[in-house]
Amino acid sequence: MNDPQIERLLDAVAWNAQGLVPAIAQAEGSGDVLMLAWMDRVALAATLREGKAHYWSRSRSKLWKKGETSGNEQLVRDIRLDCDGDTVLLVVEQIGGIACHTGRRSCFFNRADDAGWRSVDEVIKAPEAIYGRE
Amino acid sequence: MNDPQIERLLDAVAWNAQGLVPAIAQAEGSGDVLMLAWMDRVALAATLREGKAHYWSRSRSKLWKKGETSGNEQLVRDIRLDCDGDTVLLVVEQIGGIACHTGRRSCFFNRADDAGWRSVDEVIKAPEAIYGRE
Repeated sequence: MNDPQIERLLDAVAWNAQGLVPAIAQAEGSGDVLMLAWMDRVALAATLREGKAHYWSRSRSKLWKKGETSGNEQLVRDIRLDCDGDTVLLVVEQIGGIACHTGRRSCFFNRADDAGWRSVDEVIKAPEAIYGRE
Repeated sequence: MNDPQIERLLDAVAWNAQGLVPAIAQAEGSGDVLMLAWMDRVALAATLREGKAHYWSRSRSKLWKKGETSGNEQLVRDIRLDCDGDTVLLVVEQIGGIACHTGRRSCFFNRADDAGWRSVDEVIKAPEAIYGRE
């Protein structure tokens, strides 16, 4: 995909007042919803160009290439935009099988029940083992 | 689920500055990501209480019971909160098999390709047949 093609895709997105859109990452095959993060134009352009998921980190105010620290990159298989143009869906191959910084497959591991939000999914790899102990 | 139980769940959500969180609806079984909409406390409370998806309509500034006009309700099978508490995932049975107001199964029917965002999913039922012609 060349730069004019990428620009055309970016121009069709309904960016919010902060210049962002929410992006959902879904695992290819299992269909598991892995996470929701945010993208600005630079992040979506990098994702389209490289075929690896990039987001805008709102907490660090910088471009965030998913997996840059953990190695758990997301290889993009399909990119969708919704009917009103304000949400992106990435279908990805999740390297390492872990999308969440807690070491779980998916970030959506808390289930609503009578006792509150209860963690119901296993930790596959301890965060210390993913990120080191610094 | 009683009111104190619901209040406890609501209090644990990281609402944004507008008092909203994004909510992803995913189809039970197929795993298809159907849509992303927004919830305020009232919408999430109603969803938890009734077991049917309610959202906050940002365009109409009102509570929106999904399917109130179309009949395409979403029966909630599971409700998840993500690791940082700022996104909800609903696993739903999508009545009518149509989540999108365009008459498609999912709102994410536009695929990024070299020619732009291209609609790749079929219209199951024409919007006029869903909503009437008024």
